[in-house]
Amino acid sequence: MSHDCGFDEVHIDAVGNVVGLYHGQNTHAKRLLTGSHYDTVRNGGKYDGRLGILVPMACVRSLHQAGKRLPFTLEVVAFAEEEGQRYHATFLGSGALVGQFDLAWLEQCDDRGVSMLKAMQDAGLPAIPTAIEGLKRDAQQYLGFVEVHIEQGPVLCEMDLPLGIVSSINGNARYVGEVIGMASHAGTTPMDRRRDASAAVAELLLYIEQRAASVADVVGTVGMLHVPSGSINVVPGRCQFSLDLRATTDADRDSLVVDVLAQLKHICDRRALQFTLERTVTASAAPSDANLQLRWEMAVQKLNLPLHRMPSGAGHDAMKLHEAMPQAMLFLRGGNGGISHNPLETITNDDAQLCVDAFMNFLELSS
Amino acid sequence: MSHDCGFDEVHIDAVGNVVGLYHGQNTHAKRLLTGSHYDTVRNGGKYDGRLGILVPMACVRSLHQAGKRLPFTLEVVAFAEEEGQRYHATFLGSGALVGQFDLAWLEQCDDRGVSMLKAMQDAGLPAIPTAIEGLKRDAQQYLGFVEVHIEQGPVLCEMDLPLGIVSSINGNARYVGEVIGMASHAGTTPMDRRRDASAAVAELLLYIEQRAASVADVVGTVGMLHVPSGSINVVPGRCQFSLDLRATTDADRDSLVVDVLAQLKHICDRRALQFTLERTVTASAAPSDANLQLRWEMAVQKLNLPLHRMPSGAGHDAMKLHEAMPQAMLFLRGGNGGISHNPLETITNDDAQLCVDAFMNFLELSS
Repeated sequence: MSHDCGFDEVHIDAVGNVVGLYHGQNTHAKRLLTGSHYDTVRNGGKYDGRLGILVPMACVRSLHQAGKRLPFTLEVVAFAEEEGQRYHATFLGSGALVGQFDLAWLEQCDDRGVSMLKAMQDAGLPAIPTAIEGLKRDAQQYLGFVEVHIEQGPVLCEMDLPLGIVSSINGNARYVGEVIGMASHAGTTPMDRRRDASAAVAELLLYIEQRAASVADVVGTVGMLHVPSGSINVVPGRCQFSLDLRATTDADRDSLVVDVLAQLKHICDRRALQFTLERTVTASAAPSDANLQLRWEMAVQKLNLPLHRMPSGAGHDAMKLHEAMPQAMLFLRGGNGGISHNPLETITNDDAQLCVDAFMNFLELSS
Repeated sequence: MSHDCGFDEVHIDAVGNVVGLYHGQNTHAKRLLTGSHYDTVRNGGKYDGRLGILVPMACVRSLHQAGKRLPFTLEVVAFAEEEGQRYHATFLGSGALVGQFDLAWLEQCDDRGVSMLKAMQDAGLPAIPTAIEGLKRDAQQYLGFVEVHIEQGPVLCEMDLPLGIVSSINGNARYVGEVIGMASHAGTTPMDRRRDASAAVAELLLYIEQRAASVADVVGTVGMLHVPSGSINVVPGRCQFSLDLRATTDADRDSLVVDVLAQLKHICDRRALQFTLERTVTASAAPSDANLQLRWEMAVQKLNLPLHRMPSGAGHDAMKLHEAMPQAMLFLRGGNGGISHNPLETITNDDAQLCVDAFMNFLELSS
């Protein structure tokens, strides 16, 4: 994020975020915050995160070349870390901007025993607690946060639409659990005397599939499924599973959770089984700010593109900023069916240009 | 199986079976064959197999003490190996009596690299192919084979009945398979665009449960169930499973197989999934000989016990003898809900005595 683009100020902050400021007509004006993350997952793609840094950079370059100033300062942040690949913490970069960088994380070690503190120092960062705490933004000084991101899903690709308006980032609840029945001989145990743990999980899985599909933009997944020490001729006495339940609002997510947990209990009661269940993740839904979302919609319509509003199933830095200020996101379709977290992740140049054009429109509409 | 019981001849044969003969009134008379296995599974119980050796031994002792001779010779065989725990072959003892000891097995090695040939020699057996082949019985010389065995299931225990008449040993077909879908992001993949491999297996599992329950004495089990490298936030792209399908007749088993395989194909077609499936076991059903079964029924009725006819879900040495001669089995209830292949396996002394009494009745009725 060089000065070559025309940024007036560029610096690397205490957690490694790269911050660029393009001053507004009035340096005391409020700021519009934008950006995304520059890390990605292991064996990931090129666009996840970085698109949301490069698009506003391209806009700043255009504004600078045209000698234009906005009525607000544009603050572009390339977040150092979002994915949580090296340490057991995510959103390190964007979290710091909302005062959610937990200083205890600094003592965490990676797989090779390197603490986060050491890793930050090795990267030339001060790693000083007060410096990190000082990154928290005063929301009163901001118009809000906007983020451009590849969709990381198949919807826009299948609909043949380049851009999508994010209506909400889904709330998420995750569980790991186990159903406990009675292992018994597959030959000698009549069907009506079985206490088959995996049959209960199968019922739950199909219930989740139907229940999630019955409400728009709700998803539910049993990603882990395992009969420990299973044998071909033994009725499963234990079955381990995970749940990942997401919805566009916390109310929809909680309603899904209530129904799924009730169904699990109902199934286990009917089948005389026990179960354990541990909640491992709770993330609140982040509905887009109505005004910012409307501005994205107008920005897209000015390109003569059809509007498609959609939730974001994946989490994004905007989820973190949501806790401090209004936010709204714009999605760009991915090629190859929207595949992401994979080297096959791709976009087209034309689509990238549409993204930049939409962002320019957004800035104009905000002026 | 000592001479102390009153056996006229006792020897250990070429595969380690212990064979005792209690001569009939006429040494040229046909023989009645009986017995069971003296091996069991690792961490198994005391009665699985051995009951079927001890009960006829107790009868021979009674006959000998009373100076009684039967009109046929009673041949009691304690089979050396039925369970297939050490080598990848089962029914080594009873198989040898029907010419089904595959000599190629002698070269198999156990987990510690000891060949079956070496293990047999170490046990003092000749391990000479012609000696093993010579164990095949001439069915013309036999009235048939009967076997007493613990039920290894919950039915008689739950019905509070000590003895059960086996109507058939179930036929069995086993498969291992995998459904292949598309792994995708649990957050960004809408429900109607998923290709979830484990949802297909869940459907199949519940179908098997219903289909098996719809026909008496048919059972179907998915004993192994696993999403390889499953993650909480990834829609499963692969799901491995096993099938164990059993019925009292080959026709019922084959009908079950046809339905289950058709359903698997139907589910995978509907969900746009692929699957692999490999048949690993095919075992024919062994219906009891009508005359021998009737004699067991009369033997039990003479004890003023109610009759209960039932299939054997588990395999037994009688399955092997079935291929050469008529056979029928008597089941004794197990305690602890019929638990077996487990140190908790148990029976009562009173029940064991009823077994001996029923066997004595059977011998009288056969005279």
